[in-house]
Amino acid sequence: MPELRKDPIIGRWVIISSERGKRPSDFTDGGERKRKGGFCPFDIGNEHTTPPEILSYREDGTAPNTPGWNLRVVANKFPALQIEGDLNKQGEGVFDKMNGVGAHEVIIETPLHDATLSTMALKDVENVLWAYRDRIVDLKKDKRFQYVLIFKNEGEAAGASLEHSHSQLIALPIVPKRVREEIDGAKQYYDYKERCVFCDIIRQELNAGIRVVSENKDFVALEPFTPRFPFETWILPKKHDSCFEDARTHEFPSLAEILQTTLRRIDKVLNVPPYNYILHSSPFREPDNDYYHWHMEIMPKLTKVAGFEWGSGFYINPTAPEEAAKFLREAKI
Amino acid sequence: MPELRKDPIIGRWVIISSERGKRPSDFTDGGERKRKGGFCPFDIGNEHTTPPEILSYREDGTAPNTPGWNLRVVANKFPALQIEGDLNKQGEGVFDKMNGVGAHEVIIETPLHDATLSTMALKDVENVLWAYRDRIVDLKKDKRFQYVLIFKNEGEAAGASLEHSHSQLIALPIVPKRVREEIDGAKQYYDYKERCVFCDIIRQELNAGIRVVSENKDFVALEPFTPRFPFETWILPKKHDSCFEDARTHEFPSLAEILQTTLRRIDKVLNVPPYNYILHSSPFREPDNDYYHWHMEIMPKLTKVAGFEWGSGFYINPTAPEEAAKFLREAKI
Repeated sequence: MPELRKDPIIGRWVIISSERGKRPSDFTDGGERKRKGGFCPFDIGNEHTTPPEILSYREDGTAPNTPGWNLRVVANKFPALQIEGDLNKQGEGVFDKMNGVGAHEVIIETPLHDATLSTMALKDVENVLWAYRDRIVDLKKDKRFQYVLIFKNEGEAAGASLEHSHSQLIALPIVPKRVREEIDGAKQYYDYKERCVFCDIIRQELNAGIRVVSENKDFVALEPFTPRFPFETWILPKKHDSCFEDARTHEFPSLAEILQTTLRRIDKVLNVPPYNYILHSSPFREPDNDYYHWHMEIMPKLTKVAGFEWGSGFYINPTAPEEAAKFLREAKI
Repeated sequence: MPELRKDPIIGRWVIISSERGKRPSDFTDGGERKRKGGFCPFDIGNEHTTPPEILSYREDGTAPNTPGWNLRVVANKFPALQIEGDLNKQGEGVFDKMNGVGAHEVIIETPLHDATLSTMALKDVENVLWAYRDRIVDLKKDKRFQYVLIFKNEGEAAGASLEHSHSQLIALPIVPKRVREEIDGAKQYYDYKERCVFCDIIRQELNAGIRVVSENKDFVALEPFTPRFPFETWILPKKHDSCFEDARTHEFPSLAEILQTTLRRIDKVLNVPPYNYILHSSPFREPDNDYYHWHMEIMPKLTKVAGFEWGSGFYINPTAPEEAAKFLREAKI
């Protein structure tokens, strides 16, 4: 019998379709990531072909926008939003609009064209996390912005237009709907129980074990009870914290470690699939609260999202998270 | 300057990214639909290879599950939900679940393997709409169900696993999240204004004209103010009605006509793209109300949905709806 499961945070229903019970080998979309080669603006020596550096981690004595860097942050050359200007909120009959003011940046994670977060040195993964933090802290000072969305598209099928490993950041003058729902759901739970729903989930999951992929001193990687997609995996700090950018210094290497090993597990079990991940953190105007718990959501791109999902906002998942967790837990990495 | 637009019904923000300003020819994913051939369980003569007919429109004197039909409805051979059983709602710590009880049916729209809703006889398109209605009316009698979701995936990239033209229906023991949001948003608007938000939108759009694709006596086809996807198109009845299944008899040919011509416009402008459409109607337990207005949402599948969209629930659309409407309106069909 398939199971209907309700997400305790935002109330989304998911069908866990055991009859369809897909195993890793049933997802044929995997396959070694293709490295096309050709000109890449993110390669060493091509620094002048990107917009100028906003931030870089580089060898002492090297000049901005020249080689010698380990990580660079630059403006997106084709930004979805523009950094200059006022919001100019206005109505148009029943409709509301404002200028598309915001930041759209690219975090070039490594100078090595073929490296991925799974294969690069752990210290370089940690650098990526520090860059996320540094950019959030900086953008937070701009009072026009309410949220910074940080995400990564790895692989063409996951939406990456350049194959060189990179993440993206979008600073927004609004709190996006999906984030708002999560915050509101967590707040509602807190108002009722006086406990953080994510803390409750972590406690229950670590106790039960069946959906846990791995843990270290500071973090746990688990399959959520109501995953939208097969092998959807979350990484959460064990200690309650509402904002990623407030993570303690010792948590960065710890997060780098669990992020990299989780991606390696996914690569191993699903044959290096395309994936997306997204950093979920509290909006700027609700810092340091007791109800929201920052985390990362990783979604391997294994299935096509069809009309049913768009029409209903709920999902048919052919792989139970308990199964997925077992495969990932037992992966030889 | 890109524009941030807010959906007046569910409050979703969409970036209309004029700088990226994509025109129909920029979407390279189109191309004539491939007809693979090979064995098809939906073809005439293969009736015995599907589950038995739940409903069919067929020539007088022909027996069920034999040739002679114009349209058949059968159970999905690989159902996401099971029709037999009780819901058996239960908790598991912080989590909630129930048995995956529901109906999952396939509407085989035509016996002609190569026909599509764009190319089949108008009368056959009308039959498809009648089949939707007949199945909803029947499933409504089952008190376990709260909603019937009707959708169509056309083309492999839109999630269709069989190329023979068909729609799907899923009867659910819950109201899906996206539907709930739309109903709640419309109700909130109604509570404040004492008017239906969709009626207000239709009035404003028909008056302005710039986002209207076409209209007939009973329906209007338009590009919404905040489309998630390029060329997203809605079809709405001009007269307020909360439930599709309560449409008046004369509205069926009228809807068939505007649906077919809209799909032809989309085929013409975008070179026969894959698409999804979804019927949006009031839940069973809120029949015949003043705040919700049934409609169809058509989404050509032209872009990849990436991490940004999943993470935020809001969308970057590279084609302004005003542009899309102009292209569709002027299409020579």
